[in-house]
Amino acid sequence: MKIQVINPNTTATMTEKIGVAARQVAAPTTEILACNPAMGPVSIEGHYDEALSVIGVLDEIRRGEAAGIDGYVIACFGDPGLGAARELARGPVIGIAEAAMHVASLVAPRFSVVTTLGRTKGIAQHLVTSYGMTAHCASIRAAEVAVLALEESGSAAYDQILQECRLALAEDEAEAIVLGCGGMADLAAELAASLGVPVIEGVTAGVKLVEAVVALGLGTSKVRDYAYPIAKPCLGLLDKFALPSQG
Amino acid sequence: MKIQVINPNTTATMTEKIGVAARQVAAPTTEILACNPAMGPVSIEGHYDEALSVIGVLDEIRRGEAAGIDGYVIACFGDPGLGAARELARGPVIGIAEAAMHVASLVAPRFSVVTTLGRTKGIAQHLVTSYGMTAHCASIRAAEVAVLALEESGSAAYDQILQECRLALAEDEAEAIVLGCGGMADLAAELAASLGVPVIEGVTAGVKLVEAVVALGLGTSKVRDYAYPIAKPCLGLLDKFALPSQG
Amino acid sequence: MKIQVINPNTTATMTEKIGVAARQVAAPTTEILACNPAMGPVSIEGHYDEALSVIGVLDEIRRGEAAGIDGYVIACFGDPGLGAARELARGPVIGIAEAAMHVASLVAPRFSVVTTLGRTKGIAQHLVTSYGMTAHCASIRAAEVAVLALEESGSAAYDQILQECRLALAEDEAEAIVLGCGGMADLAAELAASLGVPVIEGVTAGVKLVEAVVALGLGTSKVRDYAYPIAKPCLGLLDKFALPSQG
Amino acid sequence: MKIQVINPNTTATMTEKIGVAARQVAAPTTEILACNPAMGPVSIEGHYDEALSVIGVLDEIRRGEAAGIDGYVIACFGDPGLGAARELARGPVIGIAEAAMHVASLVAPRFSVVTTLGRTKGIAQHLVTSYGMTAHCASIRAAEVAVLALEESGSAAYDQILQECRLALAEDEAEAIVLGCGGMADLAAELAASLGVPVIEGVTAGVKLVEAVVALGLGTSKVRDYAYPIAKPCLGLLDKFALPSQG
Amino acid sequence: MKIQVINPNTTATMTEKIGVAARQVAAPTTEILACNPAMGPVSIEGHYDEALSVIGVLDEIRRGEAAGIDGYVIACFGDPGLGAARELARGPVIGIAEAAMHVASLVAPRFSVVTTLGRTKGIAQHLVTSYGMTAHCASIRAAEVAVLALEESGSAAYDQILQECRLALAEDEAEAIVLGCGGMADLAAELAASLGVPVIEGVTAGVKLVEAVVALGLGTSKVRDYAYPIAKPCLGLLDKFALPSQG
Amino acid sequence: MKIQVINPNTTATMTEKIGVAARQVAAPTTEILACNPAMGPVSIEGHYDEALSVIGVLDEIRRGEAAGIDGYVIACFGDPGLGAARELARGPVIGIAEAAMHVASLVAPRFSVVTTLGRTKGIAQHLVTSYGMTAHCASIRAAEVAVLALEESGSAAYDQILQECRLALAEDEAEAIVLGCGGMADLAAELAASLGVPVIEGVTAGVKLVEAVVALGLGTSKVRDYAYPIAKPCLGLLDKFALPSQG
Repeated sequence: MKIQVINPNTTATMTEKIGVAARQVAAPTTEILACNPAMGPVSIEGHYDEALSVIGVLDEIRRGEAAGIDGYVIACFGDPGLGAARELARGPVIGIAEAAMHVASLVAPRFSVVTTLGRTKGIAQHLVTSYGMTAHCASIRAAEVAVLALEESGSAAYDQILQECRLALAEDEAEAIVLGCGGMADLAAELAASLGVPVIEGVTAGVKLVEAVVALGLGTSKVRDYAYPIAKPCLGLLDKFALPSQG
Repeated sequence: MKIQVINPNTTATMTEKIGVAARQVAAPTTEILACNPAMGPVSIEGHYDEALSVIGVLDEIRRGEAAGIDGYVIACFGDPGLGAARELARGPVIGIAEAAMHVASLVAPRFSVVTTLGRTKGIAQHLVTSYGMTAHCASIRAAEVAVLALEESGSAAYDQILQECRLALAEDEAEAIVLGCGGMADLAAELAASLGVPVIEGVTAGVKLVEAVVALGLGTSKVRDYAYPIAKPCLGLLDKFALPSQG
Repeated sequence: MKIQVINPNTTATMTEKIGVAARQVAAPTTEILACNPAMGPVSIEGHYDEALSVIGVLDEIRRGEAAGIDGYVIACFGDPGLGAARELARGPVIGIAEAAMHVASLVAPRFSVVTTLGRTKGIAQHLVTSYGMTAHCASIRAAEVAVLALEESGSAAYDQILQECRLALAEDEAEAIVLGCGGMADLAAELAASLGVPVIEGVTAGVKLVEAVVALGLGTSKVRDYAYPIAKPCLGLLDKFALPSQG
Repeated sequence: MKIQVINPNTTATMTEKIGVAARQVAAPTTEILACNPAMGPVSIEGHYDEALSVIGVLDEIRRGEAAGIDGYVIACFGDPGLGAARELARGPVIGIAEAAMHVASLVAPRFSVVTTLGRTKGIAQHLVTSYGMTAHCASIRAAEVAVLALEESGSAAYDQILQECRLALAEDEAEAIVLGCGGMADLAAELAASLGVPVIEGVTAGVKLVEAVVALGLGTSKVRDYAYPIAKPCLGLLDKFALPSQG
Repeated sequence: MKIQVINPNTTATMTEKIGVAARQVAAPTTEILACNPAMGPVSIEGHYDEALSVIGVLDEIRRGEAAGIDGYVIACFGDPGLGAARELARGPVIGIAEAAMHVASLVAPRFSVVTTLGRTKGIAQHLVTSYGMTAHCASIRAAEVAVLALEESGSAAYDQILQECRLALAEDEAEAIVLGCGGMADLAAELAASLGVPVIEGVTAGVKLVEAVVALGLGTSKVRDYAYPIAKPCLGLLDKFALPSQG
Repeated sequence: MKIQVINPNTTATMTEKIGVAARQVAAPTTEILACNPAMGPVSIEGHYDEALSVIGVLDEIRRGEAAGIDGYVIACFGDPGLGAARELARGPVIGIAEAAMHVASLVAPRFSVVTTLGRTKGIAQHLVTSYGMTAHCASIRAAEVAVLALEESGSAAYDQILQECRLALAEDEAEAIVLGCGGMADLAAELAASLGVPVIEGVTAGVKLVEAVVALGLGTSKVRDYAYPIAKPCLGLLDKFALPSQG
């Protein structure tokens, strides 16, 4: 099985870290292709960054479909472009926020999300609602760590994240932690050891869910909402995104 | 007051129609600038089209901010790019689905949305939920009319839309109709005359709401969720979208 | 366009203040008629006061309809008598809580309501739910200021309200403030200048929304819920409220 | 124990019927005082009628408090004036919609409301939401019977109501019926015999719930929302409704 | 009328206390049969205990049906086995969490639940949601008192419970208290006297609601969800629970 | 990895079928142990059957923990005993309704559940709500097939199920089907081939989700809600279920 893990930002070190995490949990028969688009913002910290990242995500999905990819993980906690990606893909496409929240709800009644910047909490809250996780989500907390600070060795990022996790357990009565950024893919094990509760990280959760869906013989439903896009011209800068119908 | 009405698709005849509708309701002191991006799909009929349209919408907002625009209407019923546009803009940005639903809820307890293709009903439903209109929305119905069929004179589109409106009133007990496509901007008056209930069209509703918000001295809140984007590099095809911080 | 702004209590100084605020934002072609009923409580601070105020509101709407009023604003944050008023009126009727919350949701994802007495928080919460604003409302806070204290110059009311606004921004992560009393109609600009976020006041918001709805050619839907009242006798003290059918 | 059952409209024959129904289920030690106000509409079929009825209900509650009444039932399915009445009363005040829905939820997972005119369905829906009965309410159906038709012997009202009940069971999968008008107080037993499911009528349910609450030594909470009204002047037609504080 | 009050745990002193409380509020014509199963855990403090208690509850209901019992109260705040019990019973079956929450919502807009151990808060929250009490429930607080500590005279349990009640009123703005354990059946009056708000205890509330439902001539609906169980073999340890059909 | 798949009823042929389905999708390194309890009902078709099945499920979990099982699937669509099982288990425990709904939501925006008897629809609806799937669930339909009819070759069960699936797609606009009974574990592939949409079956979905959770190094959270049961006596028929504390 080939799973393409798409880091929607254009920072290669983060892509590499995500790929390492993905491979650590993948089944022996799963091939992980970690990639990032050639276009778009170097990190995603708000609606504008996220909107700009979607084009690149879709470009990668197009390539993936041509290359016979079985399923995809979108490795940014805002799950950018998820609906559009599902229209393009035959197999499953899963966002890491979606993956982490679903898995968390299987092992704990209430989890807290610990994310990077406070300005992205609204985006996370919107996903909590969309995925039906309102009753399962104890709180969303921001460590006020910039995404790229997660790439710097020796930064205070880990300690700030750990501190927010502890507050989530003590004050919000969370029973598990969901890590709210693809750049935290390497932190789950250490945090879990310190905290004594399940710590769910979305890249790894996403890989296992895509493996599960593919193993079940399932792909994205191709009726109504996620039917293949209708063929039509696309102009200007985006002309290469025009698609022939695949129905 | 200058209001920019952005048709997110690249079909100029629709932009023109939208501009005419906008000017018909605008105050004498309001200047309407109707535009569409140079890039993107010719119509928006699903998640993929919508995702592709966002880049163009943001390009127009960037230009608008440089030109001193007071407020914006995003004239596609999926309200593509609304959050990102709000990060960019000082003044208000309102989507036509948002505008139409809010206005409808002021004149009737329950409205039905009548839109184009059935495959877009999920997108409309998501907006109903996001805007808090669940209890106000009696149903979402699709006339199964392609968006560009609304541009063809002599098409059966009007009759199919009228028929769905009648079913919404009779079967779903709707008390008003919300038109679910920017391309229906010229149909509201005739439909209202036939149906005997309020028919709310989003382009015109959006213009009046932007006028209202600007007249109240209000703009988009610049704390937390809609703060100006963080300055950062944006690579490749989208390099011109990199922004300096404005905070 | 003639808009009647009804202060549901019987305190004339508050009516005057409300009229001034309404005229400041009204379009040049809008005539504002600010009034209060001849009957009812001098301020509205709970369910009983509110219930008593409704008769007066309806009396004013009846007069307004006879006088050819185009639309109405009910200028008390509990929106008393809104449904009954809509049955009576051909044009739109908008409450100031409704107006302020809708406008706030257009410029910020989450607002806090800052109101007068804590005992009215339940009423405000009920309106938040009715208008679909649950996800948009960060908190409801009471400054514990009596309504008529807002009429006294030199009172501590402004400072107490400012303090609650600051707490809403800092502790509840609000991104805008909704003022929760018609008697605060003169405070929005000063508070906004101090707080640096949008401050939405309902009287002014209501005037602009009524203007918008009327300009769109819309009135209250006259099918089902808000159909004209059925003609029938009304006995005793209220005999003059018996109405002929208008259907 | 003295329970005052207030018919909010001014039709004495309906008051009498309601009193008979109340006495049939009351405990031997309960004294039922059935009354209707001297003022207000002869029937309640919409928001306007309901608003007009509230003054009379409050007048009766004031008298009741002076007379040492232990608890009240408001015998109109819109539960008019419930919050205001609770501010006035020391003991419990229960509306018949509230009573019927709560009792129904104790004997069946999902009930349907069968009411009089379709125009009142929105009012009933609002109460379903307020009382937390959304998941318990299978449907609201109107028999399109005028309220006063329930007072005419030989009318088709019973058959039309029976027919809607049957449809609720067959099409909406209801497991119990809630009768949606105080004027149906005499129909429950016969309908239940025909339908084979519990039929819950609010006047009788309200009497038993008031008895229960009083027997438990409970009254209306007098902190926050339902605290006694604040003493203040009330002008004009309603001057006698001015109240001294009782806190 | 015979009401069987079932304490689902096997601690006889608690059963006795529950019986005393039930008899204090029961009508003179009501016979209270307080019992506990011969099998099951000595106290219920989590999902596992609750699951084990259900068999005993159902055993008691079976006996009750054979003995002509008119209605049942399940006297543990998790309402264990409620749905299954309703399938078995002709008359009403009411859980004490259900009873207390419904009664509380009749006398106060928002109540807090004060329960024993924090680990059971999730169970209470689930019931709040199931009974439609989300908007009525201000908070769920645990006094961190073991259930059987309520049986020890001289324990600190009362003081800890009182303290949590005070916090609920002060910090969560509750207007009434719901006691979250059958073992608190003797505490309501003293707590109410100290707190000055209604304190609702479920055993007593349950008895009065069962009396009310039976007096109304109502029993559990026997169509669909709560139809009598289908006759079928039941093997092994539970063979005596096999039932003949009663439809 | 050892996964125990527990059929909560006592029909061995169904257990065998479930085991076959589980092994078909399990990873090569996963050992599937399919079992059913020695005690309890032969099929589960309502609340009473479900309550009786829980004891047997817990008995199996106790054995499983002693035998070093890594994770569990509860193979009845009511997910009986899920919370209690999670208290007992170190690793994950997943119900087949939970598994199927979560997987369905990853491949389609809206699914319909097709189950056996109509009387179980309320149980399924309750799970839809608990798992946050309200917005994802288009409908719950019953084929009116008894559970054990699924064990008879040549029965009309398959055709009736297929027919309900077709109605779900055509009338309810479902985009995927969730099979609502463990006894349908062998039907998914054939139904999917006929219907052209994803058909999700819970036994297989559950196995893959347990594999995923275990591979991620996660188990059931042992703080608060799912902490190990408190040690205490358990009397009578259930004495062997008394547990030592494991905290």
